Amino acid sequence: MKTLELDLGSNSYPIYIGQALLEQAELLTNHIAGKQVMIVTNTTVAPLYLAKVKSLLAAFNVAEVILPDGEQYKTLDTVNLIFDALLENRFDRSCTLIALGGGVVGDMTGFAAASYQRGVNFIQIPTTLLSQVDSSVGGKTGVNHPLGKNMIGAFHQPKCVVIDVDTLDTLDDRQYSAGMAEVIKYGLLGNASFLEFLQANISTLMSRDKGLIIQAVYQSCTDKAEIVAQDELESGKRALLNLGHTFGHAIENTLGYGVFLHGEAISVGMLMAAEMSKLLGDLSEDSVTEVKELLEKSSLPVSVNGKISALEFLSAMSVDKKVIDGNIRLILMKKLGESYITDTYQKEQLEQVIGNFCQA
Amino acid sequence: MKTLELDLGSNSYPIYIGQALLEQAELLTNHIAGKQVMIVTNTTVAPLYLAKVKSLLAAFNVAEVILPDGEQYKTLDTVNLIFDALLENRFDRSCTLIALGGGVVGDMTGFAAASYQRGVNFIQIPTTLLSQVDSSVGGKTGVNHPLGKNMIGAFHQPKCVVIDVDTLDTLDDRQYSAGMAEVIKYGLLGNASFLEFLQANISTLMSRDKGLIIQAVYQSCTDKAEIVAQDELESGKRALLNLGHTFGHAIENTLGYGVFLHGEAISVGMLMAAEMSKLLGDLSEDSVTEVKELLEKSSLPVSVNGKISALEFLSAMSVDKKVIDGNIRLILMKKLGESYITDTYQKEQLEQVIGNFCQA
Repeated sequence: MKTLELDLGSNSYPIYIGQALLEQAELLTNHIAGKQVMIVTNTTVAPLYLAKVKSLLAAFNVAEVILPDGEQYKTLDTVNLIFDALLENRFDRSCTLIALGGGVVGDMTGFAAASYQRGVNFIQIPTTLLSQVDSSVGGKTGVNHPLGKNMIGAFHQPKCVVIDVDTLDTLDDRQYSAGMAEVIKYGLLGNASFLEFLQANISTLMSRDKGLIIQAVYQSCTDKAEIVAQDELESGKRALLNLGHTFGHAIENTLGYGVFLHGEAISVGMLMAAEMSKLLGDLSEDSVTEVKELLEKSSLPVSVNGKISALEFLSAMSVDKKVIDGNIRLILMKKLGESYITDTYQKEQLEQVIGNFCQA
Repeated sequence: MKTLELDLGSNSYPIYIGQALLEQAELLTNHIAGKQVMIVTNTTVAPLYLAKVKSLLAAFNVAEVILPDGEQYKTLDTVNLIFDALLENRFDRSCTLIALGGGVVGDMTGFAAASYQRGVNFIQIPTTLLSQVDSSVGGKTGVNHPLGKNMIGAFHQPKCVVIDVDTLDTLDDRQYSAGMAEVIKYGLLGNASFLEFLQANISTLMSRDKGLIIQAVYQSCTDKAEIVAQDELESGKRALLNLGHTFGHAIENTLGYGVFLHGEAISVGMLMAAEMSKLLGDLSEDSVTEVKELLEKSSLPVSVNGKISALEFLSAMSVDKKVIDGNIRLILMKKLGESYITDTYQKEQLEQVIGNFCQA
């Protein structure tokens, strides 16, 4: 097992990464203060891992809430089901929530924990590659609104994150690829040597070699932890983690949640960021091709298949959180492995890139 | 104008108290960072003060959302109306929300500000006595759940609080009395000389003498600010501010929101706390009578009029936030002007007090 410490002062917490971690009760119990534990999971994950996690918590008063599965259920109404369960079980401020599932479960459980009685403890047990390398770490929680993704939420850090890569055994190929998009993101945004590692090992990673997966997850979490430690509340550098996300959110918002998986939208978004960087003279054609090839080798989409008009795309981008007083801020690449935040470009350049990916 | 600073490190903010403050634009504009301002108010307050506040903000992109009025609308669904308005107007992270109204508007606006895009700025303009002396100060925000009051929320501090006591001119007598309950609370919980001031001046205060009102509001906010500064997140001493609230919330939850106003429920709750303190040997019969008389002179209720059974009351108390792993913590009085937090008493004593106030 590898342990990584996310250093956030009084909000610091460990991230455990390895195999068979769901056999080790103390990884959880050391981080539970009270007696009341609410496990939040969904209809897909519950039959696979709920009994296992419950068996680790025999000494506690454990209740559970099983949510419907899917990004389309990442709403205030679904979070309200968690509040219902907490109140029906008369859970008090000393309770702990455990998020058992992917990013949607983690984001909603974290927001419920942030808001229940103005804040209770929670623990992340991410069971998808995407949530293991991204959403479970860093304390961003929240839900979608019909007019925008992740528009409602809170910064609320978990007490620990338990990443058992054995849970990936039950993840389907499409979800696995979607997670790989976020892994690739860390290479592209700030870690050229990790990018080279991924390019060299992508086929072995796609065959799900556990040793390599642990390496990739550990490096992804390390890179994320470093950035989050410098900028917990995303007032600056943390925005780099949104590489591909401004484009990607526009795709998800326009097509409706669930047509593209989040990681799939981010895949297309990263390629659009690369194209935009080429247009600004920073990336070579070869570099853009390298990005595209790595995504394709990860079985990720590199286009929106003509499903979105340029106008829809631009409109959706302008409600993204990364807009400050009307200007669209983008995360672009100076070179492969080095991204930056900018709003200095010609609107026509952005429209050109969008035009290349969309219908007129 | 009196100015009070609530000292919370980087979350510190000023509280302005006086007359004709809604004529002074800079009290607001000095605390607005971006260009986008959303005024949140309700159907009662909008016709009275919305135009006035808007006229102070000519330099900004101002939008408004007018909520239904009443504690029964203090729900997630109503907060969602604020999110709808923010997103329809494409407000970004740099926006500022202004709560213009009583405690319900303030609590919901604060929670919307805490949660919109994981946190934006907000300003409180409380227009009721209750919100001026209590809910607008200290950063507690949130909404009710059918199973419990204020069960969903966040700690989120405003950028400033503008208390124009002239807005009390439009407050009806019942609401004014309800606010006086929270004023009396500060005397009872920790300020014997303020309690004496109130006892000596209650009839003049009830006749709405502006000079005395400013004194009472200033002292209430001073006492609250001091406690909040010591314990922003209510891990200890701040719970003293809940004097009367554990009992009061049980009344509100059992009867349904709106039958008793919040301040009215707190009035009964404080008298119950006094009776309980008498039972524990701390308060004399005379002291309890003093409490009762002060409440009655403020035209506040001192009983639940036989509307609640003892069993209902006890059941409602056990889901209150102040329950830690099953024990009901109470705020009781050592003497008039000195309260403390305790869970050491006989359950039968609590049942006896509840029995005195309820049907069998």
